[in-house]
This record gives sequence, structure tokens and C-alpha cells, in this order.
Amino acid sequence: MVIVMAPEATSSDIDAVTDLVTAAGGEAFVSRGVRRTIIGLVGDAAEFASLDLRAKPGVSDVLRITAPYKLVSRENQPQRSVVEVAGVPIGGDAVTLLGGPCAVETPQQTLEAARMAQSAGAAVLRGGAFKPRTSPYAFQGLGEAGLEILAEVRATTGMPIVTEVVDVRDVDLVASYADMLQVGTRNMQNFALLQAVGEAGKPVLLKRGMSATIEEWLMAAEYIAQRGNLDIVLCERGIRTYEKATRNTLDISAVPVAQSLTHLPVIVDPSHSGGKRDLVLPLTRAALAVGADGVIVDVHPTPETALCDGPQALVPGDMEELGDVMRTLPGILGRRLVRPADTVEPALV
Amino acid sequence: MVIVMAPEATSSDIDAVTDLVTAAGGEAFVSRGVRRTIIGLVGDAAEFASLDLRAKPGVSDVLRITAPYKLVSRENQPQRSVVEVAGVPIGGDAVTLLGGPCAVETPQQTLEAARMAQSAGAAVLRGGAFKPRTSPYAFQGLGEAGLEILAEVRATTGMPIVTEVVDVRDVDLVASYADMLQVGTRNMQNFALLQAVGEAGKPVLLKRGMSATIEEWLMAAEYIAQRGNLDIVLCERGIRTYEKATRNTLDISAVPVAQSLTHLPVIVDPSHSGGKRDLVLPLTRAALAVGADGVIVDVHPTPETALCDGPQALVPGDMEELGDVMRTLPGILGRRLVRPADTVEPALV
Amino acid sequence: MVIVMAPEATSSDIDAVTDLVTAAGGEAFVSRGVRRTIIGLVGDAAEFASLDLRAKPGVSDVLRITAPYKLVSRENQPQRSVVEVAGVPIGGDAVTLLGGPCAVETPQQTLEAARMAQSAGAAVLRGGAFKPRTSPYAFQGLGEAGLEILAEVRATTGMPIVTEVVDVRDVDLVASYADMLQVGTRNMQNFALLQAVGEAGKPVLLKRGMSATIEEWLMAAEYIAQRGNLDIVLCERGIRTYEKATRNTLDISAVPVAQSLTHLPVIVDPSHSGGKRDLVLPLTRAALAVGADGVIVDVHPTPETALCDGPQALVPGDMEELGDVMRTLPGILGRRLVRPADTVEPALV
Amino acid sequence: MVIVMAPEATSSDIDAVTDLVTAAGGEAFVSRGVRRTIIGLVGDAAEFASLDLRAKPGVSDVLRITAPYKLVSRENQPQRSVVEVAGVPIGGDAVTLLGGPCAVETPQQTLEAARMAQSAGAAVLRGGAFKPRTSPYAFQGLGEAGLEILAEVRATTGMPIVTEVVDVRDVDLVASYADMLQVGTRNMQNFALLQAVGEAGKPVLLKRGMSATIEEWLMAAEYIAQRGNLDIVLCERGIRTYEKATRNTLDISAVPVAQSLTHLPVIVDPSHSGGKRDLVLPLTRAALAVGADGVIVDVHPTPETALCDGPQALVPGDMEELGDVMRTLPGILGRRLVRPADTVEPALV
Repeated sequence: MVIVMAPEATSSDIDAVTDLVTAAGGEAFVSRGVRRTIIGLVGDAAEFASLDLRAKPGVSDVLRITAPYKLVSRENQPQRSVVEVAGVPIGGDAVTLLGGPCAVETPQQTLEAARMAQSAGAAVLRGGAFKPRTSPYAFQGLGEAGLEILAEVRATTGMPIVTEVVDVRDVDLVASYADMLQVGTRNMQNFALLQAVGEAGKPVLLKRGMSATIEEWLMAAEYIAQRGNLDIVLCERGIRTYEKATRNTLDISAVPVAQSLTHLPVIVDPSHSGGKRDLVLPLTRAALAVGADGVIVDVHPTPETALCDGPQALVPGDMEELGDVMRTLPGILGRRLVRPADTVEPALV
Repeated sequence: MVIVMAPEATSSDIDAVTDLVTAAGGEAFVSRGVRRTIIGLVGDAAEFASLDLRAKPGVSDVLRITAPYKLVSRENQPQRSVVEVAGVPIGGDAVTLLGGPCAVETPQQTLEAARMAQSAGAAVLRGGAFKPRTSPYAFQGLGEAGLEILAEVRATTGMPIVTEVVDVRDVDLVASYADMLQVGTRNMQNFALLQAVGEAGKPVLLKRGMSATIEEWLMAAEYIAQRGNLDIVLCERGIRTYEKATRNTLDISAVPVAQSLTHLPVIVDPSHSGGKRDLVLPLTRAALAVGADGVIVDVHPTPETALCDGPQALVPGDMEELGDVMRTLPGILGRRLVRPADTVEPALV
Repeated sequence: MVIVMAPEATSSDIDAVTDLVTAAGGEAFVSRGVRRTIIGLVGDAAEFASLDLRAKPGVSDVLRITAPYKLVSRENQPQRSVVEVAGVPIGGDAVTLLGGPCAVETPQQTLEAARMAQSAGAAVLRGGAFKPRTSPYAFQGLGEAGLEILAEVRATTGMPIVTEVVDVRDVDLVASYADMLQVGTRNMQNFALLQAVGEAGKPVLLKRGMSATIEEWLMAAEYIAQRGNLDIVLCERGIRTYEKATRNTLDISAVPVAQSLTHLPVIVDPSHSGGKRDLVLPLTRAALAVGADGVIVDVHPTPETALCDGPQALVPGDMEELGDVMRTLPGILGRRLVRPADTVEPALV
Repeated sequence: MVIVMAPEATSSDIDAVTDLVTAAGGEAFVSRGVRRTIIGLVGDAAEFASLDLRAKPGVSDVLRITAPYKLVSRENQPQRSVVEVAGVPIGGDAVTLLGGPCAVETPQQTLEAARMAQSAGAAVLRGGAFKPRTSPYAFQGLGEAGLEILAEVRATTGMPIVTEVVDVRDVDLVASYADMLQVGTRNMQNFALLQAVGEAGKPVLLKRGMSATIEEWLMAAEYIAQRGNLDIVLCERGIRTYEKATRNTLDISAVPVAQSLTHLPVIVDPSHSGGKRDLVLPLTRAALAVGADGVIVDVHPTPETALCDGPQALVPGDMEELGDVMRTLPGILGRRLVRPADTVEPALV
């Protein structure tokens, strides 16, 4: 941490800062310039943070030079993590496809969507039973009935399921059905929810907040990790910008940037980013090419009747091309697609 | 609602749309142009929304021309609402000052901050007992102990209290102490929380999400209103933009824009917008001048020891100027400052 | 300037940096921490910038702690400047109203608009003869014929004129008519144009780029100042954000922030910020209240026939209220409205 | 175009609008709803635009339903264009690599950079002789001496050159050396410059403005096209957002979106987008995968001594990996890399 003193700071202002730092068990190195003095701090940054040095007399600025997250930081764990979802790996040298309907509507629609996704190489089924909707007048999901449908489709297809939880009171219920819990973009800073999923004993898919910085996203992951759960997969799903030609702006650079800062796997949601069917395949290719650890896509057997986000769902006719992309692109990038056969055998207990 | 057909749409595409609209109880007016056909819909917009016309063959775009919120819309209640917080009005021809510490730390600090705010004209005490913090390592608030401190200070000063609730499981607890519940910027689309505060029987202060559009903000208010609670005060607190010279960018235009769309009162938080003490008074003046129904400010007796947001808190030496602003500016704008004596007497039951 | 070394930096990496700094005539203070070393630099920042230290081995980050602009910085001239436009002051304890049509269309329209603005207290006439338009198919202005109309209206009304120049080849022509040259938002980083107006011998009104940071805006002013022209007035006109309820988002905080960084006057354009007539008066009040040195507004005698930006122009019926605002609000803020009678007499030569 | 009338609009307001439209040679279709009336217009949109219907009594909104650009629109030319730069094609089934130093510094540095780029497959040399810099104290480029260096390196390597022009008065000079003129991000709405390069008889590389919408970008291209020059290549180079982890946010979706709206080729600049060397190769892969028609990269033999943007330049050690990407990725996407041998033979005159 570096303290920049104001030009008008007095010697006693400077002494006051160095005294505080020393009292907190740190060391302070003073560099006196012609116009300004700067003070370099060495020691425990969390301890220094509690001193609120920014508010002290004569202090002009406080510059942080280390990341505020620890458990999820790559500084503390250089090798990249692999998260297992009921035996399906996400991360490492493999690339994982997750697919399914935006919202669970009926058993048949969900099963058809799962089969579609599976045909293109998907190893995990996505599907929403509890939907966070901007309007209270929009379809809010089937609730527990939706979870039951997902469980049935899992039994039929063998695909583990990831589904969103939007209410901290529902975490246990959703965890009793799901193989992976999703925290959505609107809840990325719902800290009570983050802590609850951190304690639920299931891997977590953490979507980036729609205007969250990468650092805030990693801090949200740190909330989950702090509760003892490091099975976290990050999902870039587009950020809010001035550009309205797409629903959100896919921040494709966030994938390599986040991968350089954290050991957690990072996947991409090309469906919610672009918000248009025509963009899903190009953005899927871009996500794989940039190095994402997986892709999560909306598929629907009959999107013209979908109760949620129909315009962005891939249709049956898209599955062949999606499958081609998933089969060919990872290889030339030195990776391979996770198939059901790749499932990690659970260790005997 | 207006449907714009693509240039290549066929007659049967057009007929399919008009048939759907008619079947849903609406009327469809077709305007055939040289290149495109447009279809104007008359009837129940919510009904039309469920048709997902955007996904139909030949449809290029669907343009909504009425607001998606109803209960909070000014179209449905042209006169502006007054919300009472334990007898203190917000809205109407009055201007209300709310002030207090960002976080409740000790009884003495809270009482001193309340007295400071009161001296400048504040009629409502703000103070956080549950704090949503970006970092899990930052001070998270005193919890119920903080609520008890607030209640004591209310008893001493006579100021009703507004405090934030961050966890849907705490709504009843917080409502048992508070006169007004605050929903913070990070929870503006935590729909479970919105519904819970809608049922808690207390007025709600709804901060704008840090990247929420004005429409999304009003939709969030609609979630609360739908549960039978129309005692909602909106609070503009700065939005996230590319500009980093301020913590957030105060969207001052949002005040008159929101006031034209909703009958709910709209206040401004100049402390969190700018994030710097020096900006609080200029932004307070701007907020009153633009027509805000009130202002909510952070004050602290000794901000250099504050556990949260010290750099933006007003200090004792600022109270005289704040008081001057609150006493002089509303008058020339045709409004007046709410004083404790203005408190609305509760009707005898 | 502070150099943050990477955890893996070697001693020789650190020595290489300090050697470079010393060779450049500066001093380097090394603070060795447990994980990282930081190096504080004292000396000529411009000299250090040319070393491109960020690209050196072992360097993790370079933090600048002084402003990159000099001539326009308040550090170098603490008292605020007053810029005179043909004798009309902008800045200091006065507040100046500038008004007129967005585009000059006819002599009568321009004269009527000038008289309207004057009736509300305007001391300077604005009007565009060269218009930068997003579409090549939109009205591009009358060109020199428009300048002649402005000159005639100046002769009739006594109001000095400010008008935009959009092409570096037109600077001399426009300067031969105008009392003040305007650089528009789209040209804020047209450096050739900035340098040319810096040499034209007329005061300059520099609008903020629609996505420029405050620092970039001041750097643009520095380009003008470097050519020997310090008669620069900055104009905040709204920035581009995700919010589309207004044409742009007026960054009201930019006024006090810029005033703290530069000695140049700062005014506000409430017409282009909001883009709607209904917002102009509220935003004018906010601008004055926050401490702006003036306001520039679009007015039009018959906006329904305007060739440019009709929806945001104030109409004759608005002048009384605008005049009221201009007469009453500055007084309670300790300022006063500049009237024609305030014109500074040119010193005898 | 669709006119939405306000709920309080009168019959005579509606008649006034339809009369205007009819007088302008159009047709108006009126759809009267319970709360609102909408009017569909059929005819010449440019003609309607000049009516400024938005400002008419009773009009609440005007919705445009066709694109405001024509010459560059894909509606008018469905097949995608190929632009030739001194015989090197950009667009079509090929993918083109452009590379070179950010700024031309010396003959040796420029030649080495060209050879580096060529070794990785580059067919066109980029290099700046006139540099637009945020600070007037930064290196501004070598000017004509830089153009001469570029011409020499072209003679040696056979690579055609693209270089930026920043001043309308320099267009003829730059065009006398360059094979392609670049308009930079800060000048995307410098309309005088756009018109001048439109008349210069050379292909144009048009970078997207750092906060330009895709529509504004295409309108800027329309300015060039209007002057008779349709040899335009669009370049996405990152947009300005709230996220500061990267210099800009690469809007990867803009590539397929723009390609669906215009027939012009679209390339990507991964160097200026990310602003960091480590991001250039991942973003290059993403750009190719999403379907870009080419990539333009900064390379430098010794970036630690670069006078401009050293931290983002690829170094000699990166060329092998860049070459691998360029050779392998286009093939599996159904495209191929343009090599010098692909150069189109100029037709005999």
C-alpha cells in the first residue's frame, strides 16, 4: 500500500501516518519529494485498511497494490482448479458444454432441450425453475415443480443439472435437487445468498454482475469461498454498456484477465450476452478461442412458444453446427471437449 | 405496441400475427408500406407480451409504447404521493432532510451524528446496522445491536429511523425496529427482498441500482407495490459510468425524469454519489434545485475513525452550511423544509 | 510517480529501474516489502514518462500521482480565471447566460432567438453556422452565410457571439466573425483543431467529449493553452452512459470536480444534456446551484420548424421562468448574473 | 416510421400530422387505441425526418424502423465487399493480417517490425507517422519523415502500408505515400476529415469511435461513401466502459452485428482493445473465431524502448505463436489467410 501525501501536508501529518502504521505492526518507508511525500507500507494490508488512512489529515490518496481477495487468487494457488459437477469436470485441459432451456416449462420441453444439447456435446443440463424477472408481471418459473422436472430429466439423460437459486430461503431446497447452484447476475452482490450457497455443499456457478468489475466479481467469489466452498465456476455473461445493438456487451477479454487473477474456471454465456440467436454460434466460437473453460447455452425445441428469452435460444437446426464447433475448435487450441465418458469416477468411500 | 415486419415477411406471416392478437382479445391495424408492413396493436399489453411476438416468423421488431409498470405509474395517479415515515412527510410541497452515520458504530457516535444532522434540519435519522460490503473482510455492521442503538437514539431525539435490510430473513427483525426500510443499490433486483419489504408494513426507501435504468428502478418499485405497499420513496444515488473522478456519477436528470413517470417521491443521496466530502454540499444544492423531494446525507462526528465511508461523511463543521442550504434554497423554489413540528399527527383510531 | 515491482522481480530489475531514474536526473526511494518492492520517484514526471518504465522487466505497475496538465492546472494558478468575450466576463463571482438557436436558419429566426435569450438575461449569443451532424443527410448549417447573420444580429443586439468551428481550415474564417470559438464534443480530441483555435486569438468554448474523462478534457484544454491561449471556458454537456431516458447523462459533479482541478471557468449546457425541453429549466437550476460559472441554452422562436434539435429548444413562453431563475438563484449562492451593463470596458491602448 | 401520439393528443393534432405527411408525399395509416393513437408512415424517411414530427403538438414519440445509412447498408448490397489495398484483398473468404509498429521511430525499427509481422503472415504494414496523443507533451510522431520511412520499408518488403491521417490538411500528403488511409478512433466523427479521405482516392480503414454505437460507426462510413469512396474497412478496437482492467472493452459481438448490417469488411485491433501484450494473442484468436475479416496488431522489435504503447506490442518471441494462429484457425472456420502470393494482379490499363 502506498500513501500519497498532499503538497500541503505537514511533517506532523507524515509522522502521524507512520506512527499509525508502526502501531499496527507494519513498516513505513518515507520518500520526501520536492512537492509531495509518499509513504510505502509493508505489512498486513487488511490491518492497514482498518486504519482508514485515506481520512487522515494531509493524506491525498491511498493506492492499493495487492488484490483484496485471497482464497480465489492465483497468487495463492498458481495451478488452475478443476471443479467437478457430479463427476463432470469444468476447468483444466478440457472444455465443457452446458446447455438447456432458459426456463423449465414442461417435462417434454425440458427433455427435448436436454437431448438437443446432449447431441451437440453438452455434459451438463441447465434450466431455470426460479426465474428473476425484471417485471413482476412476467413468468417467474415453476418453482419446486420445475426442480422435479429437472431431476426426472437427469435420471433419463444422465446429465447433472445446474439451476439458479434466487432466494436465500430456497438454498436448501434447490441444493437438494441440483448438482450445481447458479447465482445470477442480479444477485452477484446479494451477500446473504453468496454466503448461503457457500455453505450448501454444492458447486456454484457465479455469473458476473451486469455492471460488476472483474475485481468485484472475484470478491463475490471470495464471499462463497470464505464459507469453505472453493468449487466455484465463474461465468462471463455480458456487461452493461452504452451500446444497445446487443442485449449486453460480451466482455470477451474478461476471460483471460480473470484467468490470470484467479485459479477458478471461467466459462461464457453467449446466449444472454448477445440476446439474439444469430450471435450465439459466433460468440461460442469466440469464447472457446479466447480460452474459456466452457460455454453455457440456451436451447429450446420450439422457441416461438418459450416463456422466457425465446429470441436467444438455439433451435434443433442449430445443433449440428454447435456440435461441429465443439468437436473441432478445442482440438486446435490444445484442449478437448468433455464427454459423458469423461466423467470422473467418484472415489470409493 | 407496434409490430415491425421484416421486408421479406410474407402475407401469411402478417396474418399469423393479426390472428394471434385477435385471439388474445386485441385489435390489429395493418399498415402496408412499400418495403415493410407495420402492425399497430390495441388492447392489453401484458396479454400481448405473453405472445412473444418478437419470435414469430417475419417479425423484425416489437416496439412497446406504454410503460410496463402500472401501480407506481403517474399515468394511473397523476398527483404526486406523500409518504409518511412515522409522521414525517416525504414528498408534496415539502423537502425532507435525512441524515446520520453510514454505519452505526457506538451509541455515542450515533447520537452525536443524529444531533449534528438535526441541527442542520434533518427530520429522519439514517444509519446502517446491516452493511452490504464488497469485501467479506470489511466491517459488516453491528446487526441487531445496531438496531437497538438506533432505537435508543430515536427515543432521545424524536427522529424516526431508516435503516437497510440486506437479507430477506431479517426483514421482520429490522421492521420491528425501523420506521422505514432501505433497500440498497446492490439489492435493487433482489426480487425476494423486494417482495418481503412489500409485505412488512413499513415505508420503503428504494435506492437505484448502480447500473439500473430508470425503467428498471420503477419496475423494482412495482414489485414492492404489488404486495400492497405504495409507501415507497425512490433514491437516486449515482450510477456507474466510465468516469472515475467520482465514486459514481450522480444522474441528476433522473430526478425530473422519474418524477414525470411516477407519482412516488424522489430523493437524492449526494454522499454515495460523489464519494467525497467536498462534493456533498454542491450536490445537495443541485439536488434541491432540480426538484428532489429530499436529500439523504452521511454525517459523522469523527470521520477519521469511521468504520465505513469516512471520506464522504460531513463533519460537525459542515452543519452550519448544510443548515443554511436547507433553510434558504427550498423557499426560492416554492417549497419548504420539513421540520419536526411538521410531523403529521396520526389519525385517532 | 510510484513504481510497483512484481513479486518475482529480481534485485537487478530493481537496480535497473533506479539507474534509469537517476540517469534521468531524478531520485528513487526503494521500499522493500515481504512480497513486493515499491520505488518512489522524485523529479520531473514528464522526463520519467519518456522512460516508459511500465515496460521494463519486473515492473508490475506505474502509478502517477501528479496531474499530467500544467498550464490549466489549479496547482499552478490557484485563483480562478475570468475569461472575457468581447467584454462580457465568464467566471469569477458572476454567472453568465449564453443563449440562442442551435442552428442559424434565417436572419429573422436568429434575431428573434437572440431577443428571447436577452429577455431572460443572456449576455452572449450562441448559434451554429457549421453543424457537425451524425448523418451526412442532415442539415449541415448555412456556413459563412450563417456567420454573416450572426454578425448582423450582434450589431443589432449588442451581444457578442460564440459559434462552432468544425474544420481546421475554417478557423480563420470563423474567427473573423466570432467573438468566441466553440469546439464541439465530437472534436474534443481533434488535436489539429485544438492547436488551430489556440492560435486564433479568440476565447474558446471547449465542450467535453461525450465519453471523455475530466482528465482528458483538461488535457484537451492544455493543447489549446500550449499555443498561448488561456482564454478557455469548459462546458459540461452530458456524457454517454447506459441510460437512454435522456439524450446524454449530465455529469453535474463534473462542475465542482473540474473547478477543483483547473482555474478555468466551467459552464453547463442543459439543452444537449437532457435533450428534452422539459428538462432544461430543472437542469439550469441544478447547474447554477452546483456552482457553474454559466449556462448555455438553446432557444428557438418556433421550434416545431427548427432544422436542428427542435425538441430541446426553449420557447418564448419559457423565457419568463428562465429569467426568474437567472435573477433569483445566483443571489442566494453569493453570485450575480452578468448583464450587458457588466461588460468590461476595454482598456485604452 | 411510426408516430406515437400522447394520450392527451386531440383529433386535430392527429389530423395535423397526417396532413403534413400527405403533403410530403407520404401515406399515413392511423390506428386509434383506447389510450393512444399510433400513425404508421409509408414513404421517404428522409423527407419525413425533415418534418421534425417529434416537435409537433400531441406527438409523444417517433420511432424509426429503417437504417439511416444507405450506401454502406447490406440492404442495398447483400453480398459482402472485398476491399483491395494495393492488390491485397480484405474481406471475402480470406482473412488478412495487418501488422507493424504503433509509431514509426527509425528505419531500422520499422523494417524489423515489418519483417516480424511478415514472418507471422502479415500482408499489410501498419505504422503511425502522425500520432493523435491525449497529452500535448507526448511524442506526436515523425510526420513526413515517418511516411518516407514507411515507403522505404514498403519498397524493401513489398508490403503495402496503412497509416493514420489526423489533420484534414495532411490528407493529400499522406495519400501520396500510403496505400490505405486510417481514420482513428478520436476522429471517427471528424466529419471534415471523413469527407476529405472520401475524396482522396485511397481505401480507408475506419476505426470505431471509442464510445460510438455501431449505427454511428456506419454513419461515419456513410460520410466517406457519399464522396464516392466505398473502399472502406471497418475496425473494431474496443469501446469505453466502466471496466478498467483492460484499456478498452473489445466489443467482439460488434463484428457479426456490423457484418449483418453492412457489406463492408470488418477487422479487429486486439492490441488497442486490451492494451496488454498478454491479451493480444487470445483476442486475436477470438476475433478470427467470431468471423472477423482480419486483424491488425502492434509489433515492435524492442518494445521496452518504444515511444508509444510499448506495453501492448507483440515481441519477436510472439511471432511464432501468432503465425500458428493465423495458419491454423482460419482453415477450420472455412477461410484462409491472405499471403503476399494472393495479391490481386492489377488490371492492365
